Amino acid sequence: MSRRRRIYEGKAKVLYEGPEPGTLIQHFKDDATAFNAKKHDVIDGKGVLNNRISEYIFSRLNDIGVPTHFIRRLNMREQLIREVEIIPLEIVVRNVAAGSISTRLGIEEGTQLPRSIIEFYYKNDALNDPMVSEEHITAFGWATTQEIDDIIALAIRVNDFLSGLFLGAGIRLVDFKMECGRLWENDMMRIVVADEISPDSCRLWDIKSNDKMDKDRFRRDMGGLVEAYTEVARRLGILMENDPTQGKGPVLVK
Amino acid sequence: MSRRRRIYEGKAKVLYEGPEPGTLIQHFKDDATAFNAKKHDVIDGKGVLNNRISEYIFSRLNDIGVPTHFIRRLNMREQLIREVEIIPLEIVVRNVAAGSISTRLGIEEGTQLPRSIIEFYYKNDALNDPMVSEEHITAFGWATTQEIDDIIALAIRVNDFLSGLFLGAGIRLVDFKMECGRLWENDMMRIVVADEISPDSCRLWDIKSNDKMDKDRFRRDMGGLVEAYTEVARRLGILMENDPTQGKGPVLVK
Ligand SMILES: Nc1ncnc2c1ncn2[C@@H]1O[C@H](COP(=O)(O)OP(=O)(O)O)[C@@H](O)[C@H]1O
Ligand SMILES: Nc1ncnc2c1ncn2[C@@H]1O[C@H](COP(=O)(O)OP(=O)(O)O)[C@@H](O)[C@H]1O
Ligand SMILES: [Mg+2]
Ligand SMILES: [Mg+2]
Repeated sequence: MSRRRRIYEGKAKVLYEGPEPGTLIQHFKDDATAFNAKKHDVIDGKGVLNNRISEYIFSRLNDIGVPTHFIRRLNMREQLIREVEIIPLEIVVRNVAAGSISTRLGIEEGTQLPRSIIEFYYKNDALNDPMVSEEHITAFGWATTQEIDDIIALAIRVNDFLSGLFLGAGIRLVDFKMECGRLWENDMMRIVVADEISPDSCRLWDIKSNDKMDKDRFRRDMGGLVEAYTEVARRLGILMENDPTQGKGPVLVK
Repeated sequence: MSRRRRIYEGKAKVLYEGPEPGTLIQHFKDDATAFNAKKHDVIDGKGVLNNRISEYIFSRLNDIGVPTHFIRRLNMREQLIREVEIIPLEIVVRNVAAGSISTRLGIEEGTQLPRSIIEFYYKNDALNDPMVSEEHITAFGWATTQEIDDIIALAIRVNDFLSGLFLGAGIRLVDFKMECGRLWENDMMRIVVADEISPDSCRLWDIKSNDKMDKDRFRRDMGGLVEAYTEVARRLGILMENDPTQGKGPVLVK
């Protein structure tokens, strides 16, 4: 394991060469960054939780026929994924106004949007991930019109499914970010959901109290991030009472 | 004239009630503003030049069947227009990278774009005219999908025509901004080009020297704005040798 090749180290994850061609190992770090990495911290246990939550979400998406890069979880911090050609876009789906759309368009946080809104951001740290439209995406060749249509169709399905999943767990899906990639199988290419979906990439508000259960706790210095992510995992039924990922140290499997 | 009702005073123009229902008088001031009016100045003669240049462009657009609000010029600073319901968007068409697209997407100024790019900005001074996509426009009801399609079709025609017109005058049309409005005729509504098209709302570079002949001279404190706008008018064949609008005082008509 120690001699495997590191392909890429990002802000929150590391990618290693996988055991077979066309696979990668996605390793979740405890690093938290915000505002394009101008704010940075290490939050003990975050990586373990995101690995688990993202595993759960991607497995359920695979189950309902939404294609993803996810194969299986390997250990506490790592999962086996299919290598894809990442499309350099952050796809944001918003159901309720919060964050940048509130600031940019002057809509009070918490306002239900008239309908779900899909936004695209050009994934480029040096440029601060600027918002772009389909015009820019096609003109600069980041994706074709057909690929954008596929991405939008995926984004709508993921949003519908996650809205239901979280609602069932007493959580309001305010918005989320996803990434997509091109997966080649022989001569066929299809667009799949890649990267992660976790409280790092969603806004999740408790349905009753509106308490934030996501990375805004870090962005806004609210504290209690690991507790909030743990609660998300617990409500999704991912963590068992004595699960070692809860940080209570090794426990005998019942 | 002095008792006519003022409908709206904007940053560069004043709208007065027109002589007949459904008409307005658009008055061009000498005020120049930039960066959402954080920078302001009065530039003697600018209003007269923009009234003339915009008259010329809108008349030629009407000639080729691009519907506009323009009826006729009334005097040095004023033109008669049809009142429309302004769609709160600034429609920007770009042929060459300059200004905000260069900064936002990291493209060197002067780079020819792979193809013309149409952008939408929500016309709202308090929010600094944020860029928006068709998703925002339709979700918030600023325009319908059909109206956006009409606007895009108009924008492409205007860009094609103006690119040719300016090229014929030794000028490169780098980009321009236009506004559109809904014009009601009995029960029929159609989208027309409104507001102004002038060196205030275009980027115009001399084809040989790349000298700027537009409002960037003001934005970037380069001076020589009236001289540049006068040269644009001269090259378009609008100003006669002894035209009084050139500021040489009254001259006998030959
Ligand atoms: N299946 C995949 N194949 C290849 N690259 C992927 C895949 N899934 C995610 N990635 C990329 O791996 C990186 C994950 O690490 P992360 O810390 O999120 O990086 P970043 O700081 O670039 O966002 C991201 O750049 C993401 O685009
Ligand atoms: N035909 C029209 N009918 C109604 N309003 C118009 C028409 N053409 C332009 N307008 C509006 O009139 C105003 C022109 O004045 P301007 O100084 O450009 O204002 P602003 O500071 O709002 O841009 C703009 O708000 C523009 O949208
Ligand atoms: Mg990332
Ligand atoms: Mg204006």
